[in-house]
Amino acid sequence: MLSFDIIEYQNRLSKTKQRMAESGIEVLLVTDPANMNYLSGYDAWSFYVHQMLIVIIDEPQPIWIGRYQDANGAKATTWIYDENVIAYPDYYVQSSVYHPMDFVAEILKQIGQGNRYIGVEMDNYYFSAKALERLKQGLPNATFKDADLLVNYVRIIKSDQEIEYMKKAAKIADEAMFKATESIYAGVRECDVAANIYYQVVSGTKDYGGDYPAIVPLLPSGENTSAPHLTWSDKRYQEGEAVIVELAGCYKRYHVPLARTVSIGKPSKELEKITPVVVEGLNEVLHSVKPGMTCGEVESIWRNSIKKHGIEKEARLGYSVGLNYPPDWGEHTASLRMGDPTVLQPNMTFHLIPGLWFDNYGIEISESFRVTDAGCETFTDFPRDLVVKDPFHRNQHGGIIS
Amino acid sequence: MLSFDIIEYQNRLSKTKQRMAESGIEVLLVTDPANMNYLSGYDAWSFYVHQMLIVIIDEPQPIWIGRYQDANGAKATTWIYDENVIAYPDYYVQSSVYHPMDFVAEILKQIGQGNRYIGVEMDNYYFSAKALERLKQGLPNATFKDADLLVNYVRIIKSDQEIEYMKKAAKIADEAMFKATESIYAGVRECDVAANIYYQVVSGTKDYGGDYPAIVPLLPSGENTSAPHLTWSDKRYQEGEAVIVELAGCYKRYHVPLARTVSIGKPSKELEKITPVVVEGLNEVLHSVKPGMTCGEVESIWRNSIKKHGIEKEARLGYSVGLNYPPDWGEHTASLRMGDPTVLQPNMTFHLIPGLWFDNYGIEISESFRVTDAGCETFTDFPRDLVVKDPFHRNQHGGIIS
Repeated sequence: MLSFDIIEYQNRLSKTKQRMAESGIEVLLVTDPANMNYLSGYDAWSFYVHQMLIVIIDEPQPIWIGRYQDANGAKATTWIYDENVIAYPDYYVQSSVYHPMDFVAEILKQIGQGNRYIGVEMDNYYFSAKALERLKQGLPNATFKDADLLVNYVRIIKSDQEIEYMKKAAKIADEAMFKATESIYAGVRECDVAANIYYQVVSGTKDYGGDYPAIVPLLPSGENTSAPHLTWSDKRYQEGEAVIVELAGCYKRYHVPLARTVSIGKPSKELEKITPVVVEGLNEVLHSVKPGMTCGEVESIWRNSIKKHGIEKEARLGYSVGLNYPPDWGEHTASLRMGDPTVLQPNMTFHLIPGLWFDNYGIEISESFRVTDAGCETFTDFPRDLVVKDPFHRNQHGGIIS
Repeated sequence: MLSFDIIEYQNRLSKTKQRMAESGIEVLLVTDPANMNYLSGYDAWSFYVHQMLIVIIDEPQPIWIGRYQDANGAKATTWIYDENVIAYPDYYVQSSVYHPMDFVAEILKQIGQGNRYIGVEMDNYYFSAKALERLKQGLPNATFKDADLLVNYVRIIKSDQEIEYMKKAAKIADEAMFKATESIYAGVRECDVAANIYYQVVSGTKDYGGDYPAIVPLLPSGENTSAPHLTWSDKRYQEGEAVIVELAGCYKRYHVPLARTVSIGKPSKELEKITPVVVEGLNEVLHSVKPGMTCGEVESIWRNSIKKHGIEKEARLGYSVGLNYPPDWGEHTASLRMGDPTVLQPNMTFHLIPGLWFDNYGIEISESFRVTDAGCETFTDFPRDLVVKDPFHRNQHGGIIS
């Protein structure tokens, strides 16, 4: 059931402790569900209540603390010894009186960690302002340090096994995009396309099942293609509209995102003009990426490519991607953007998404790639172009403009 | 496109400002996506970056602050005037240098709000410890107050229109549970049942589409029924196993959750013994609920009912439910549990989920209900019982033990 072996488990812990030592952190409170998974195997939809993994620099095993009803899951899905799984009673859950961090503070004091340098993930969704406040109240002799992204940076280079998981996710992403473009035509409701995508993503392939992506399928249409994060409605598509489809395949919580733009019938003049610019920029980037470059240098290739056509892009060009939980499949470490100093190394993985959004339309054609020893390789095979559909007929996947 | 009219908009703002006045809060920073939606209509998957609605007690219109690429969505989906939609540049996103809360602090100073009593949602997923730290640094003359759940408590009594949305969500929940129980039999993979549920939930009905629930379908099977928050795998069901299915229908972000337990073939002795106890307890609670009771009193009916059979339940019996975003469909206000003093009023809505989890099995049979003028009514119609399936045949929805 576990997605990595005990040697990898020890290896991940040891790299984390090394970074803790470099940062002067003796006790690390890991609240990011992806980091909890990475360090222990823990995988459950229980992150809507406070929970954490405690990594102590001079203790061999981490401690899991969470809700009582989730302790069985922690024992079943992790490498942690059962005696290191500690559960708080249910009256701590979403209570105006009790807070789980009071419980955590008490445990830390009991095991002699109350006066140490404690690292916390300051900007994580699952470490609220109140969580820090209550910990500080409960541990007046501790010194708190910002350990945000400490484990995320350990995760930035994937193991070969993690790459294999991403390749499986990629196959799901390809099939889901195929299903999406197949099911988009005039008269179809947005929600039914979203349902088709979900079916494919969750069911996976005949050989292995899919997992839930950390972001829902995004498929704005018509003028809403200018607003990339609106979700679907039950509006029916019309001839001449464009639809942006952004989705991810997910396997064992590893994501491979993929975006394409679909035109229902003849593309607008704007889309016809912008598509080759985006594809050319993508190709230039993908041909140039290699280990040793910085993320900022990658972005400058794109920027120079589109500048030839008089276009500028405001948003970042991409981000590190892999293991994650809602609400984001991005890893919050390296971004492909101006000035990012991260140096590319083999088995770093990115979602390269040169989305352009104008006042009343937008376009997204993306690729997820892995840095290789000599360059990079994309995870998916879906044609890198605008997808043009016969507007009234369900067909295989639309004719591809080339 | 908006899910409530301008009178309701004014009404919600006015109730929020009344609570702000009672709490001595002049400026409220609303970061909970459900609260942002409730107060403005804003609905997008953009909460993975920092964003907020600012409600100023002596200003008629709230201000939306978010990422540049999301500003079009904010203009399209909210009642807020376009000039009150303020966007921060993309270099603030997930950066180690810039933080969106620096931008927010600067705006607040520029509009003369830098020295006021500012309420923040201290225990919300989307208000991190760092968000508070950066706001405090940027606004040294402000006084910060805990406004956690302030808007959630405005939301606790639903309007008639919100109840209509929940009734639509309930129809989706019923159909999805039907589809789930229909597709569970020996030899089927868990992921394919999850895919079927997702298809139904997102597609919705012929008359209206569905929305994404804030929690994925939970469907632990076999021994994993003792761990309620594990998600699916690609394991195939076996004859004699039990499966717990917990899902929600969702319409315009309003949820109606529903849980049932399915036995693939003859139920185990344990399930046969515990099922009537749970159903009897549920019935007693649903026959007793009426306005004027406290949530704690509701729980005591359940506790006394199961105590007759020598059973105790550790976890809370239920919680307020309605409008929400991942990672939770619960509203974090009232809980059906010992000592909760919330007094029931008409149009409060709850998920009553008397789940019982033992060392190697569990059971969930739940109902979502609305408090009426004289009692309560459930949202869904699905038979309130263990679902027993012919183990090797897909059939309508399994025979129901009664």
